[in-house]
Amino acid sequence: MTQRIAVIPGDGIGKEVMPEGLRALEAAASRFGIVLELAHFDFASCDYYAEHGQMLPDDWFETLKDFDAIFYGAVGWPATVPDHISLWGSLLQFRRRFDQYVNLRPCRLLPGIKSPLADRKPGDIDFYVVRENTEGEYSSVGGRMFEGTEREVVIQETVMTRHGTDRVLKFAYELAASRPRKKLTSATKSNGIAITMPWWDERVAEMGRRYPDVAVDQFHIDILTANFVMHPDWFDVVVASNLFGDILSDLGPACTGTIGVAPSANINPEGTFPSLFEPVHGSAPDIAGKGIANPIGQIWSGAMMLEHLGHREAADAIVAAFEAVLAEGDRAVLTPDVGGSGTTESLGRAIATRL
Amino acid sequence: MTQRIAVIPGDGIGKEVMPEGLRALEAAASRFGIVLELAHFDFASCDYYAEHGQMLPDDWFETLKDFDAIFYGAVGWPATVPDHISLWGSLLQFRRRFDQYVNLRPCRLLPGIKSPLADRKPGDIDFYVVRENTEGEYSSVGGRMFEGTEREVVIQETVMTRHGTDRVLKFAYELAASRPRKKLTSATKSNGIAITMPWWDERVAEMGRRYPDVAVDQFHIDILTANFVMHPDWFDVVVASNLFGDILSDLGPACTGTIGVAPSANINPEGTFPSLFEPVHGSAPDIAGKGIANPIGQIWSGAMMLEHLGHREAADAIVAAFEAVLAEGDRAVLTPDVGGSGTTESLGRAIATRL
Ligand SMILES: CC(C)[C@H](C(=O)O)[C@@H](O)C(=O)O
Ligand SMILES: CC(C)[C@H](C(=O)O)[C@@H](O)C(=O)O
Repeated sequence: MTQRIAVIPGDGIGKEVMPEGLRALEAAASRFGIVLELAHFDFASCDYYAEHGQMLPDDWFETLKDFDAIFYGAVGWPATVPDHISLWGSLLQFRRRFDQYVNLRPCRLLPGIKSPLADRKPGDIDFYVVRENTEGEYSSVGGRMFEGTEREVVIQETVMTRHGTDRVLKFAYELAASRPRKKLTSATKSNGIAITMPWWDERVAEMGRRYPDVAVDQFHIDILTANFVMHPDWFDVVVASNLFGDILSDLGPACTGTIGVAPSANINPEGTFPSLFEPVHGSAPDIAGKGIANPIGQIWSGAMMLEHLGHREAADAIVAAFEAVLAEGDRAVLTPDVGGSGTTESLGRAIATRL
Repeated sequence: MTQRIAVIPGDGIGKEVMPEGLRALEAAASRFGIVLELAHFDFASCDYYAEHGQMLPDDWFETLKDFDAIFYGAVGWPATVPDHISLWGSLLQFRRRFDQYVNLRPCRLLPGIKSPLADRKPGDIDFYVVRENTEGEYSSVGGRMFEGTEREVVIQETVMTRHGTDRVLKFAYELAASRPRKKLTSATKSNGIAITMPWWDERVAEMGRRYPDVAVDQFHIDILTANFVMHPDWFDVVVASNLFGDILSDLGPACTGTIGVAPSANINPEGTFPSLFEPVHGSAPDIAGKGIANPIGQIWSGAMMLEHLGHREAADAIVAAFEAVLAEGDRAVLTPDVGGSGTTESLGRAIATRL
């Protein structure tokens, strides 16, 4: 079984964790008889921008659209390219044009990792954030008026559609229905964001009629972030708009000790276009070049990719491998963010060896 | 010296914590020779709505505008009135019409309160959130199109002005400049929210030129929430848009153990209209009626009100009083959220007695 994967390391620590992501992928592939056909691309990075004045080649869509999946590192290098240019010119294009409308982000306290929350142990934090990934607050509609004067006004529109909202809600309800707790939490802010969010609440309630077995609750985003810290055990599946999902899927992993391990799947559930798998962490300019970035976010994203492609056993083996290495707790192997003195490579190799 | 205060308990636990807020205020006033002239109002509550079909009487603006300050409890009772109606019909009106453009929210780990964060002690968390309070993401501009059909589109505009942004940035820089650490953190999301937030970043940088002594940094809101949990000691003054400030000022207090103690000041710095003081917590329908809500958020808000009115000594005395009661740690006195078995009244009385 051959899988054609587009590999895009991107910027900063993306380039450092990607080799370890591939090492784990290849180890799992050879063990489970999967043939990986990898195509490497240097675009969707700020280096590419420096050379070409754009983040992507003109034919990027044609180039990527027939791959089985895209394996991405991280993008962004604000010292040379403003973030909104690098991101809107790459990752946010992929999500939209390939209609990856579900951003699925597990949040789980792993063995061997100390949570910054007092008295939390593995098992206490184990939920998914399901984030709408193509519309909402991330829009490019709007502009500046009276620019450069005292009267300056800047407007940005949040755009939500029934089409875009219902499909991600459906995914979230299905996921909740498939889990033992059958619990869905909706992130809202209908007391302050008075037009889109009350409508979001209506869609959540409406979709809920089809899933009588799923218990639904909702919190305004302000108190929801507070509850992530105070009661992370309350959550099973959390569904959120693009912006709220972005926030919750950084905050959740922070509560599990490090965002370095958090994976994400940008999914096109219908398979019309390739889905994209990337760690939640960004390019991390502050630690880039030091070889100390945690590769588990990338490796776990690779596992989610294999699972998405139908190789659940191989995916589970990868997860078991990094959990075992973490549980062992060999400080010389682990990266600094999880209390070790090792490197990206030492941790990546230990995981691949396990496999 | 007479201070004329409009007292509005509002809904839910607002009605329970207000008497304790007043008890502390009056104790401080009599000790420091301040004469309080209190006027009590039942509007801006969902009970009032039930009777009158609106949250406020038609002449509310005239009625309130000449008070020295407004002391508010909490508003919202979603079982009977949808949140966006109750909030836009009361609190959000006050903030806008009285041009209370700064929402100042201290976030401090108090003695005797256990943080949900591991290994944090008083002194480790001590910062202010300065929230823009009149514009931004909280707008009522937008609407629904193709309503009720598959083509439905819902749009909401975020509106930021130079006038509105610069004045709150100025307040935040001044506050940072007045503190020993002289550090300001800006909450942004200029990588995803591509029109308003890059502009926000520009205004932050521009205003920064006037304050060369203040060290400024910025984080995207997603990683900023993560850093509140992982590194709360990094922060001194955090400035944020209306929505981001709302989120950070619930998350921050959660990291200090309970949002029940967090106060807020909705300030009109020029004094053109009264400022408004209220706890950060809402009406809390889940615990309303039980008499167990923590009154410290209300009491501390009262202290901020006295400070705003020029009575710093009296304000400090209130803060010292509740810190002393918390440090004592008498479980029979403290409310359940801070590990006690007492009531709103037992805690309120203990604080007033101290005064
Ligand atoms: C009740 C709600 C509208 C309000 C807000 O979002 O401003 C509250 O959460 C606050 O923080 O004061
Ligand atoms: C880099 C940024 C645009 C992106 C986002 O906000 O979606 C990132 O934070 C993420 O969560 O994938």
